[in-house]
Amino acid sequence: MKVSELGELGLIELLAKMVDGARDNKQKAWQQLILGIGDDTAAWHGDASIQLATVDSLKQDVHFSLDIISWQDLGWKALAINLSDIAAMGGLPRYALVSLALPGSTEVESVLAIYRGIIELARQFGVAIIGGDTDRAPLIDITITVIGTTGTRAKRLLIRSAAKPGDKVAVTGYLGAAAAGLEMLTKHLGFDSEAIAVLRKAFWQPSPRINEGQMLVEHGVKAAIDISDGLVSDLKHICQASQVGARIEVDRLPVLPAVRANFGARAWELALSGGEDYELLFTAGADVIDEVKAAAACPVTVIGEITAGKKSEVTVVDGKGKLVSLPKTGWEHFASK
Amino acid sequence: MKVSELGELGLIELLAKMVDGARDNKQKAWQQLILGIGDDTAAWHGDASIQLATVDSLKQDVHFSLDIISWQDLGWKALAINLSDIAAMGGLPRYALVSLALPGSTEVESVLAIYRGIIELARQFGVAIIGGDTDRAPLIDITITVIGTTGTRAKRLLIRSAAKPGDKVAVTGYLGAAAAGLEMLTKHLGFDSEAIAVLRKAFWQPSPRINEGQMLVEHGVKAAIDISDGLVSDLKHICQASQVGARIEVDRLPVLPAVRANFGARAWELALSGGEDYELLFTAGADVIDEVKAAAACPVTVIGEITAGKKSEVTVVDGKGKLVSLPKTGWEHFASK
Repeated sequence: MKVSELGELGLIELLAKMVDGARDNKQKAWQQLILGIGDDTAAWHGDASIQLATVDSLKQDVHFSLDIISWQDLGWKALAINLSDIAAMGGLPRYALVSLALPGSTEVESVLAIYRGIIELARQFGVAIIGGDTDRAPLIDITITVIGTTGTRAKRLLIRSAAKPGDKVAVTGYLGAAAAGLEMLTKHLGFDSEAIAVLRKAFWQPSPRINEGQMLVEHGVKAAIDISDGLVSDLKHICQASQVGARIEVDRLPVLPAVRANFGARAWELALSGGEDYELLFTAGADVIDEVKAAAACPVTVIGEITAGKKSEVTVVDGKGKLVSLPKTGWEHFASK
Repeated sequence: MKVSELGELGLIELLAKMVDGARDNKQKAWQQLILGIGDDTAAWHGDASIQLATVDSLKQDVHFSLDIISWQDLGWKALAINLSDIAAMGGLPRYALVSLALPGSTEVESVLAIYRGIIELARQFGVAIIGGDTDRAPLIDITITVIGTTGTRAKRLLIRSAAKPGDKVAVTGYLGAAAAGLEMLTKHLGFDSEAIAVLRKAFWQPSPRINEGQMLVEHGVKAAIDISDGLVSDLKHICQASQVGARIEVDRLPVLPAVRANFGARAWELALSGGEDYELLFTAGADVIDEVKAAAACPVTVIGEITAGKKSEVTVVDGKGKLVSLPKTGWEHFASK
């Protein structure tokens, strides 16, 4: 059935039922909820900790193309990019509002699949979907707002402006996989099935580092960002906010083995500039990093250090200390192409 | 200068400066703010009252056409429709996140004008703009999320599901003006200059009934909604949520004089079904309504009553009690046109 046949109210009713079916009363978000979908606003009992809010969207033909993604992955990723922002503050996500725009000719089943993807990820992190908005539009747009709080054990934040000269620069997990996945999907590159699965998942189902963000706060890390634009671009954001420089060594980058194996010399480029890995990039003193490494369930790799050098400049060097020039430094929305 | 020449980061910087220039430290929203635009999320000190959140968008060629609106009014209205939802809960708006999509060819000055409109209204109600998102897109889309709290004097909500048989149905202000304004603008109708100004403002600069929403809660009103889809459609939402019926009398509708004067026999139709008036529609016992009337700074008009009759049915009658048939009952996004 098409969305235009079901109608707006029918669609909202269907989605509201689906969301209510995913209610999890063991989670604080649902326990505190007074009104979810269906009134003028959502309402919940506030608490006096620090509150967080972020909004980010996936737009057809800007961020994705329908021929290389499943509807369910689309929903997952639209929520994941927002949860990643909460993770990068050391916060816990609590509530999500989903603003959905689509053509009337969209199959209702496709919309339900988007919501299945959103709900699947929301359940993993105890997030309650509490409202939203549906509109007709020529292209699909999923804009999600996520509201969260600081964690229960430490009421501090990971901010961009807290990096200090002498800090080590480190990342969680592996780099380059999402960009490699996008290239594989758009260029129909043929790899072995394991590589295909890993790269596909990296691009379409990134796992927000919520637990790792909490862990960083608990061990005293103060500066962090999530890697969405690209390693170098996002490190620049930290440098600008903190009024420092940074130096990273290409040879230390934790490039995903499947990327190294299949993209050869271009692997480091994907890791430096590809973006969308949604790993956490953070800075802290060497002792704090050692503690983090010991506590982390995922790889944590030191890739360079914060310098007092030229403001906001990120220098990339190879194993011999030779300057590496960068072909591209991340995502720029309004660039004429 | 075009947005594509300035670039995404340049645009964000410009908008962040503009928003910071509008900071008002006498307002609680700004006082409690820890981080606004510029980090992974916004952050603020929470409080333990009831929290509210809503999201709504204005999309080019769906909700507006650029040939009949100024950029500044567009910004105003995009925020107003969200503040109206907070008003309809009896809440106070606190924070706004602005997700903006536009073509690279948009003039930067136009984007600044959108923000001027948003900021102008935000300042009126002490709302802090704390973040957002900018994206390239073929058509303009302004999606705003507003977070609020219950008022300081009464921690109750106005909900859709609290209407009871015997309640009077009442509205704030006047009806039909927004729909009349839209028709005037799209059909280039020529009225006297005063009517033009009033109808234009009604459509493009609706004033959210925040103070009135607070006042309703304080006087014990329990059920309300804002009129966005249209009087009959929105009353149906209340009836569905409350499992009641309603009966309204056409002759009692507070149709705006400028609409009555210029639209003749169609005036009542615009008032019943036009939508976008953003007045509050509420139900309560006759004694409560009397108190509200005495306390209100704006007109408050009883237009009918809640019945125990057929579930969710809204009956419209004329002065002689004769049934009036309705040509259209509000906005339906996915309808094939």
